[in-house]
Amino acid sequence: MHRNPGKTPTLIALAQILGFLAPAAGPAVAQNPLEAVRRYRDANQGAIIAELRDLLSVPNVAGDLPNIRRNAELLASMLRKRGATARIIETGGEPLVYGEIGEPGRPTILFYCHYDGQPVEPANWDQENPWVPVLRTASIEAGGRIVQGWPGPADRVDPEWRVYARSASDDKAPIVALLSILDAWRAAGITLPNRLKFLFEGDEEAGSRHLAAAARQHRELLSADLAVMADGPIHPSGRPSAFFGLRGLVTVDLTVYGPIRPLHSGHYGNWAPNPAMRLAQLLASMKNADGEVLVDGWEDDVIPLGPAELRALERFPHDDEVQRLQFQLGSVDGKGRTRHELIARPSLNIRGLQSLFVGPGARTLIPSVAVASLDLRLVAGNTPQRQVEKLVRHIEAQGYTVVREDPDSAMRVNTPRLVKVEAGAGYPAGRTPLDHPAAVAVVRALEGAGLGEPVVVPTMGGSGPAYVFTDILGQPFVIVPIVNHDNNQHAENENLRVGNLFRGMEILAAVASAPLRPR
Amino acid sequence: MHRNPGKTPTLIALAQILGFLAPAAGPAVAQNPLEAVRRYRDANQGAIIAELRDLLSVPNVAGDLPNIRRNAELLASMLRKRGATARIIETGGEPLVYGEIGEPGRPTILFYCHYDGQPVEPANWDQENPWVPVLRTASIEAGGRIVQGWPGPADRVDPEWRVYARSASDDKAPIVALLSILDAWRAAGITLPNRLKFLFEGDEEAGSRHLAAAARQHRELLSADLAVMADGPIHPSGRPSAFFGLRGLVTVDLTVYGPIRPLHSGHYGNWAPNPAMRLAQLLASMKNADGEVLVDGWEDDVIPLGPAELRALERFPHDDEVQRLQFQLGSVDGKGRTRHELIARPSLNIRGLQSLFVGPGARTLIPSVAVASLDLRLVAGNTPQRQVEKLVRHIEAQGYTVVREDPDSAMRVNTPRLVKVEAGAGYPAGRTPLDHPAAVAVVRALEGAGLGEPVVVPTMGGSGPAYVFTDILGQPFVIVPIVNHDNNQHAENENLRVGNLFRGMEILAAVASAPLRPR
Repeated sequence: MHRNPGKTPTLIALAQILGFLAPAAGPAVAQNPLEAVRRYRDANQGAIIAELRDLLSVPNVAGDLPNIRRNAELLASMLRKRGATARIIETGGEPLVYGEIGEPGRPTILFYCHYDGQPVEPANWDQENPWVPVLRTASIEAGGRIVQGWPGPADRVDPEWRVYARSASDDKAPIVALLSILDAWRAAGITLPNRLKFLFEGDEEAGSRHLAAAARQHRELLSADLAVMADGPIHPSGRPSAFFGLRGLVTVDLTVYGPIRPLHSGHYGNWAPNPAMRLAQLLASMKNADGEVLVDGWEDDVIPLGPAELRALERFPHDDEVQRLQFQLGSVDGKGRTRHELIARPSLNIRGLQSLFVGPGARTLIPSVAVASLDLRLVAGNTPQRQVEKLVRHIEAQGYTVVREDPDSAMRVNTPRLVKVEAGAGYPAGRTPLDHPAAVAVVRALEGAGLGEPVVVPTMGGSGPAYVFTDILGQPFVIVPIVNHDNNQHAENENLRVGNLFRGMEILAAVASAPLRPR
Repeated sequence: MHRNPGKTPTLIALAQILGFLAPAAGPAVAQNPLEAVRRYRDANQGAIIAELRDLLSVPNVAGDLPNIRRNAELLASMLRKRGATARIIETGGEPLVYGEIGEPGRPTILFYCHYDGQPVEPANWDQENPWVPVLRTASIEAGGRIVQGWPGPADRVDPEWRVYARSASDDKAPIVALLSILDAWRAAGITLPNRLKFLFEGDEEAGSRHLAAAARQHRELLSADLAVMADGPIHPSGRPSAFFGLRGLVTVDLTVYGPIRPLHSGHYGNWAPNPAMRLAQLLASMKNADGEVLVDGWEDDVIPLGPAELRALERFPHDDEVQRLQFQLGSVDGKGRTRHELIARPSLNIRGLQSLFVGPGARTLIPSVAVASLDLRLVAGNTPQRQVEKLVRHIEAQGYTVVREDPDSAMRVNTPRLVKVEAGAGYPAGRTPLDHPAAVAVVRALEGAGLGEPVVVPTMGGSGPAYVFTDILGQPFVIVPIVNHDNNQHAENENLRVGNLFRGMEILAAVASAPLRPR
């Protein structure tokens, strides 16, 4: 392919291949889509990180509508910068950002990411503001030091460096990876192998309250031969991962009532029921000592995994013991089942407990109320309504009267055991069979990318609106994650390992150029 | 007793008796100690309330040593104002205030009160500052309005009015009642029937950490023929109450460990143990559905009540149903036993629960730790050490390894179930038999005061350092409470019903003038 094999150009090309020089990747250099991405990325590492930094600087908690809109407008402008069309889809709440690029008539891939993040408790972070990104030389746990200043646009960036900010991993890094791929292909003059659509959501962490309605309303606009969600952590080995399902989620808050006001524990203890004890007994009734859910019929409506899914789980490089040591767990739940077997089952998690005070501020009182916040993860076959109903029936079977709003005095006085159950709307799981042609094409594209044998998983443990794609839009669906597994997703000190963003560009480029059959 | 029965003086005396005029109660008017107290009180209601207000204006949480000392110095000056000797006894922590008045050689009564109060959460109060007392025309629940300004020294004060402030009832009102009795007797020229000693403690709510050592060190100074504690609420009927015991107390904090950091509940749920669920199961194992403690041997060392105590409990005017309705309880613990039967047993109370977040701030995480704060009330026969040891054995029997400090990584990784148990030092109960001569004398004095049939109770539900008097100083011991039962003791909006302070002066004057036999 060397048109003019003179001495100097050859040396330059060699130096470029070895990464010594920052190339302005041109059409002559690389027509292979993945190669083009690698070259562009290596020449623009600082610029890519800087774009991520700028995107992370916009606060993004769902409900904070002014800032959510700032994110949406920034994303639309980022799409247009790449020559994609872009529009903001109003939902009545957090807007969606839609973009597309490529020739009509080609097979179409719809990439979905979310730009909102979990709420933050800044005091728990090792940086002043979770929306003022901090660059470190490694993870905090590994002693990473803060890097003063940010790299220049063409500077190489150590792959071990980490960007600390809310949504650094979940889920803004994949957005930047996808848009940087467009830059790479444009710089290399590559014709897009598939038509690409982009859908960026601002309400995922709050339960994707508007996405389903928007999908129904914009069915034609969003039509595609494959939906790809770039979210969640990659396998710790770094091998490309493909998850063909995502669990559903519904949250439930329980409030158990005691005396109308806190009572002196000496004068009234042993006599006035303690709502914290009653809540503890109620929660304890929901799981056995192995962490198995005891709620009647909890798994009755689960659609079992098929032979292809079971084979994939067998081939899965289980790393449970590594993770147990990493998280310093002295034991694990589930009676010896692997973590991925357990993820294929619906869950019941206590995400918060609260009653009066603990520690130095604790006072010798019988609390007036005790509250537990739960999250229930759903798998294919479950519905949020049915799962909540099972839980309510379980609670009633423990002798409780269930109310949906705060009870009045008469209700309190006349009801031996009273609990308020507040359930969110939730959403179901979505899952695509592993033998679907699009699923097969994705796995082959990842196998051909030269990034290691793909890790193929029937469903991811996390939740997201997969059902919008599988059930409402009728699309085969896959999650292709790129970020580091130790990213502190949803918690304080969320971070992205820079190398994962760079490698993620190759992974997502492989998927974006997968040879699909149109519908 | 009228020395000069002329016309005008007789009319004035009549008017004074009927309360129309504010008398300068003189020796000619009343030699009866209780009558002198009534007259003085009726002429000085505003002044008495003002002195309480001033005492309540000094913040008084144990540990806040500068303010605790301000309280102590104010109390010493208040004693001296009455002609009592006063000194501050240093303890290394919160100081004691000691005072005495009356002729040596007479029978001696040691009055004990505490001047510290429970910690406050100002945001939960219906007033800006719990140490800026607020006068209301009734309780908040009864629609009491704030009274602007305070009454003048000789103004009458509506007995239904309430003083809202931390320690208004627990335990500064009794201090002001006692010192006002001294004023009354001095104004009436009455020779004190007994020698009176006063001991005011500044660390009671924090567990009386220095009192026992101080009692051992100042045994002679504190010697007395009867110890009287003026603390806790009077019977709701307003009948004088005498409690001849007080429970002990020990606090226990439990911390159950999960993953070293909060984990995504989707990726790790069903597999990584949830410390909030494990804590719930551990707590649930401690009590049955009727609220009975299931810890092995919990009541084994309890000294049973004797015939006199059982007779007193039979005569007790039980009001459990009234209280159940007042506190809006749909059921009560204890399998139908009365509240006072249950109070005579050791208790286990969850005073606080905490793990991550509940409500709108809740996030879909598996918590890293879950904490419960307990308080254990002890009765005669229990010791704090033994009761904690029983609880620890129970926890171990649930499969837990108990540590006393935060575990290191190796401990966490190698221990299937790990809990940190942090127990306070605590203190035991103290109780005087109802047939002790001093107990009999107190009951007779209350019977003779014309304030209704006394309510006699073997032990109060609350805790306090009774054992310091019964066990260390070897004194018969009684609690004579005066404050309203609905005082919100230990909670927000603590308050004193003014009429209880006024009536309490008569009750405490009857005890202070009880005919005791010296040791």
